[in-house]
Formats: sequence, C-alpha cells, structure tokens
Amino acid sequence: MSFDIDRVRADFPILSRQVNNRPLVYLDNGASAQKPQVVIDAITRAYQDEYANVHRGLHYLSNLSTERYEAVRGIIARFLNAPHEDEIVFASGATEAINLVSYGWAAPRLQAGDEIVLSVLEHHANIVPWHFLRERQGVVLKWIEPDADGSLPAQKVLDAVGPRTRLIALTHMSNVTGTVVDVAAVARGTDVPLLVDGSQAAVHMPVDLAVIGADFYCVTGHKLYGPSGSGAIWISRARQAEMRPFMGGGDMIRTVTRDAVDYADPPLRFEAGTPGIVNQIGLGVALEYLMGLGMANIAAHERALRDHARDRLRDLNWLQVQGDAPDKGAIFSFTMQGAHAHDIATILDKRGIAVRAGSHCAMPLMDFLGVTATARASFGMYNTLAEVDALVDGLQFSRELFA
Amino acid sequence: MSFDIDRVRADFPILSRQVNNRPLVYLDNGASAQKPQVVIDAITRAYQDEYANVHRGLHYLSNLSTERYEAVRGIIARFLNAPHEDEIVFASGATEAINLVSYGWAAPRLQAGDEIVLSVLEHHANIVPWHFLRERQGVVLKWIEPDADGSLPAQKVLDAVGPRTRLIALTHMSNVTGTVVDVAAVARGTDVPLLVDGSQAAVHMPVDLAVIGADFYCVTGHKLYGPSGSGAIWISRARQAEMRPFMGGGDMIRTVTRDAVDYADPPLRFEAGTPGIVNQIGLGVALEYLMGLGMANIAAHERALRDHARDRLRDLNWLQVQGDAPDKGAIFSFTMQGAHAHDIATILDKRGIAVRAGSHCAMPLMDFLGVTATARASFGMYNTLAEVDALVDGLQFSRELFA
Repeated sequence: MSFDIDRVRADFPILSRQVNNRPLVYLDNGASAQKPQVVIDAITRAYQDEYANVHRGLHYLSNLSTERYEAVRGIIARFLNAPHEDEIVFASGATEAINLVSYGWAAPRLQAGDEIVLSVLEHHANIVPWHFLRERQGVVLKWIEPDADGSLPAQKVLDAVGPRTRLIALTHMSNVTGTVVDVAAVARGTDVPLLVDGSQAAVHMPVDLAVIGADFYCVTGHKLYGPSGSGAIWISRARQAEMRPFMGGGDMIRTVTRDAVDYADPPLRFEAGTPGIVNQIGLGVALEYLMGLGMANIAAHERALRDHARDRLRDLNWLQVQGDAPDKGAIFSFTMQGAHAHDIATILDKRGIAVRAGSHCAMPLMDFLGVTATARASFGMYNTLAEVDALVDGLQFSRELFA
Repeated sequence: MSFDIDRVRADFPILSRQVNNRPLVYLDNGASAQKPQVVIDAITRAYQDEYANVHRGLHYLSNLSTERYEAVRGIIARFLNAPHEDEIVFASGATEAINLVSYGWAAPRLQAGDEIVLSVLEHHANIVPWHFLRERQGVVLKWIEPDADGSLPAQKVLDAVGPRTRLIALTHMSNVTGTVVDVAAVARGTDVPLLVDGSQAAVHMPVDLAVIGADFYCVTGHKLYGPSGSGAIWISRARQAEMRPFMGGGDMIRTVTRDAVDYADPPLRFEAGTPGIVNQIGLGVALEYLMGLGMANIAAHERALRDHARDRLRDLNWLQVQGDAPDKGAIFSFTMQGAHAHDIATILDKRGIAVRAGSHCAMPLMDFLGVTATARASFGMYNTLAEVDALVDGLQFSRELFA
C-alpha cells in the first residue's frame, strides 16, 4: 500500500486551520500528536449513543461499552505484537505505566544498594519514578551516557550491568535527539529485567515485542494520535506474577471484606476504578488507523522527512543540531548562538510553525549536551517535505533577526 | 431559575435513543452518567481545532490548550467552593485521587497500630487503598456500621475516634443506599484529618467545602456528566504541605539531575506527566452546565424523584429496599425474594431500563446487609417521574415472572 500524504492530511481536521494567519505547520508531535477524524468521531459516537460504565453491567449499553473497551486490549496487543492479550495493562499514559512498575514491581523487590541502569537520554517519566526508589529506599541509579552523535550502543548498556543491577530502564527513541536504541540487543545480552519506554518509538516505527524480548513496554495514547488519558503497558506474564497491586479500588479485586482483600487476576489487578473508557476506545481506533496505513509505510515517510530535514539543517552552519545518530527518528533539537530557544519558538509561531522550546522533560540530557534548553521540531506522519522547508525558512528568518 | 426537565433531557443526545426497541430509561447514574451535548461538543472542538500539549509550550495551540485546561482548576474550585484554587489537584477520577492521599500523605506518616476510621458504606475506592496500608505497614482499619435505616450519624464516627486515629475516610453519599453523611459535623467534632469521597454527593447536591471543613474531598468527572478520565481532589494547603509526591514524571518537577530531584510546588507536584487535557476541559464544561442549572435546582428535582420512587417502591411489599435514611439521595438498591438481582436487571433491560446489579464495589456493605448482590436504580438530573413509574412497572413484571 502506498502512503498518500494528502489523504492522510485530510484525515486530520486541525491541519487545515490557520495559526497567526498562516497555515498551521505542526512540528510538536514529540509533545503530543493531533487526532484523525475517525478518532474524534469514535469519541462522539461513544458518548452520544453507546455510553455506560464497563464491567459488571448487565444492561445493553454497559455490555456494548464493555465490548468496545475490552476489544482495545486485543488491538494494542496486535499493534505491538504482544505474545498474550492479557499482558496488556491499560494506563492513562506512559507516566502512570512506569509508576505502576516502580510501585508494583520494583519498590517491594529492590534493596538499598541495588542498581537501576538507565540512560541520560531518558524522559523524566522514566527517571523520576526511579529517583523515588533512590530517595526512599537507597536504590542506586547508574547512568549511561550516549556517544557524541547521540547514539546509545547496546554494548554500553550491557557493560554497565553488574551483580547488583535489578532493572534496566531505557527509552526506545529519544524525544530530544530521535536516537533509536537497540533494545532487542540489550534484552538478548542480559537476564536483567528490561523496561522500555516506547512513548516515541511506537509512534514512528513498527514495534514487535516478540522480537524485542523486553519485560515491560509502555506506550502513551495521546502521542499515538489517540485521546487524552489513554495508553497501556505490556508486562510479561512472568513479571505480572511478581507484582503487587499499585492503585486500589473497584474492578481490581475479587472480594473485599473488612479484614482482607483478594485481588483479581492480572491484568485487571493493575487497573483500579472506572477506567478511561472512551479514551481507550478512541486509542483503539487510532491504532487501527495506524495499522491501516501500515507502520512500515509511516516509518518510510518519516525517514524521507528526516533525511530532508537533516540535509537542510546541516546547511545552516549557525545552527547546532543536537544528536545525529544514523537511524534516528525525525526529531530535531537545536540551538542557535545569540538566540534563546524560546525566542526561536516564538518567532516560528508567528509564521504558524509550532515547535517546542525548553528542556523537553529531559534535564539530565540537557546537562550532558551543555545546554539549558533547545528548540525542537518533531515530525509526525502527516508532515511534508514542504513543511521541512517552511521550518528552514523560519529559522533563516530568525537568524536574520538575531544576527 | 426553574428547572425545565424537558430542556435538560434534550441536552443529552443518548436519552433519545432506544434500547431493545424501547425508549432508554437510564437508571445507572451511580455507575456513570451520560454526557450533555455541550460536553461532547467541547471535546470535539478541543481535538478538531485547539489541540496541543499543555504547559511549557510557546506556540499558539499549546498556549490555547493550556489556558483552556488550567481554567478548569478555577471552575472546580468554584463548583466546590474551595477556599483556594491551588488546592485543586487534577486526577483521572476518585480512585487515583484517593490513592494519591494513601501513597502521598498516609503511607509515609502512619505507623503500625495507627488507625483509620471508615464506614461500612464505603465504595472499594475508599477501602482498598487503606487495606494496602494494613497489609504493608500494619495500619488498623476501624469500621463504623450504619444504623438499621442506613443512616450514619456523625456522632457514631466521632465515638470511634481514638488516640491512635490518624485519618477518617468517609463517603459523602453512599452509592448503594443513597445515605448522606453529615461530614461537616464530623469535621467540626475532631481534629483528625478527614477525607471525604464526594463521588456521588457532588453530582446530586450543592457541596460547600468552606462549610464542610474537611481536609481532602474528591470528585470523579465521569459521574458528574463529564468525560472519561477526568476528576480532581481538593486538598487543603496544610495537608498538601505534608505530602510527598505520588507519581513521578514530567511537569511535577522543578529540576532533575542524575543525583537529585527538586519538586514543583503544589498542585503541580501531584500531577505527573501529560494530564488528561481534553477530559478535564470537558469536565469544566460539564460543571459550568451544572452550575448553570443550579445544583440546588438539580437537588430539588432529584428529591422529587426520590420521594416518588420511595413511595412507589414502598408499595411493592415483595421488594426489599436497602436503606431508607431520611435525607438520602435518589439511589435505590433492592432485592426480590426468589429472583437474583442479575435476573431483575436483565428483565428490566429488555424493557429499555438500565439498572446495575451486583455488589456495586461495596462488598463490606453487602455483607452487612446480608445480601450478595442487589439491583440498583440510581437517578440523575435528567430522569423523570414517568421513568420511576416505568421502573415500578418493570419490577412488577419481573415479580410476575418469578412468582
């Protein structure tokens, strides 16, 4: 199937709007992606015609809602090629998902002096939950630095693993540099449990959990062209069996008395309370949409965007692009001497171009790069080569203002 | 302002649909409420025209989204008459909210032998997080039983408070019996911190936190005619200052290094990661809608529903209604000898009437009542006296089937 960029763009209503009297050029996909009409329609339909709370209902709307909601587990499993559908645990996003692992798996198991290996590329969502364990129970964080081009070789990770290493926590794709980490090679090289933050990677490339062989893999729906408050984490049955519940409430129990609780089997054990029903239904539709286009086709389109952007940004010798790993995703963070990243973003915004400026929830990486902030253009499947050129024009305009 | 039930009903698109070839009679509001068109439209608009991630964005859509999202904090504060807007902490619902208190406030403070006083009326969301503290650190749960009519006098709660009591956790309105607890009298009678689960009460009556004087008060958006995955908890500044963070991730930090984290000030400290942006925007619209109608008007309408239902159900001498506290909300749980609650729900469903059957996430209360399950008709602001009659007709029909 060929990837028809015009048809894809037409599926996203917001892309036809103007910002500051210019056509919107949305290059803030690393923060959150826009939603196709099918997702918006699914949300509307769910609320207008098919809504009720899920599970334990015996009436028509509750059964319908439950059916729609529970089907999403299978869609996510298919999207990630997860070995078993019951290994998919719904979460409101990657942050809740990683905290589930920190509180449910790591906190009761790790002792003072035990180590967690993680990379300097990580997003705060894959840092702060581990800092909690350092602060609260003396767990040691062992940091791996990327190479000069932003690459993070698997061997470097494996070299950091020692006898006290209890967990490796790695991003699959950096949200700042676009670096793709060969997490499968890490998984092959050690028996230490591996948590992979797929928040960026799953949006931009095919993910095959059967090949990767990790223990935990999380995704966040709002970056996957899905609704706010949707997402999931794949947790292998073996690790699920080692976990205690995280949040307590309805739906995650079998029985509750005044003196005891008997918990439900996974995955429900890890899903307390009324879930994000319509959000997850919308995520299912988003993932079907992505699979309909084909993740390989999306990845190919984004490689073309990346190559064009890389070439054009390279010509701007007054621009410092952070990270240039060979197989990186189409995410470009940069600084310009004499101009603050925030000023660049503001000037681009006047031309309708949305980029983000700041530390991108990755302060240890900012420290490593020797910057306090970058501007970041992060591409999605609906971006075009012409939008790369618009970005470059905007940067040249900024340069002239600050020169 | 008068409450025009026909106009209200017209605002909810799902109410005009049929179920099993009968007009939908939706009496499962205790589980989740339907959504008015203004809420659905707000969600559509947010995704179609105004979407981006919030905070730290410098581009137009991010600023717009942040403005819309952050405004909801003030709307919730106004809805609950909270003393300060920064005391409103966003949460995905009551379950996450209560777990925030359990993990962030109670877990680091309570010692083995310390007591939490809670009532047998509680929903599992206000039970299981405290069971965690019992299981994990030896906290003692002290249970208060309701009176025969389902009432829970404040004095009974106060009498249970002892020198080791560190927290009182109470529902404001039972989701099974509709019992309203005078939480203000509890707060007046003791200095022990009080957590109130407002999941039901805030939907059906005016809530005034300045009068109640509790320490924690949570609401859940999906029951408040708002979207999936929306909600909040009010936490007094004094208690916020005593809390440690719950979930770790972006947005809740000031700085992160490899060795340390400096946390953001409340309320952001307790809101990790990309929040449920559009869900909370939708909740804001739902609350504006409720305030536009007037919570006192809604409560008056529901009192009429309650009185009519109470009278008509009382006539069915083969029906056992659980709980009849004088000022109860319009929630009726019942059993019928010879018929399982699930069968009643299924028969009513055939007539288009949606009720729930089961333990309603309140197993300790089921034990206390001596039943394993009840059928439950829970009314909302859009229900009518004619729907009460339809319920009674349906019950009479069920009775004939099982007699």
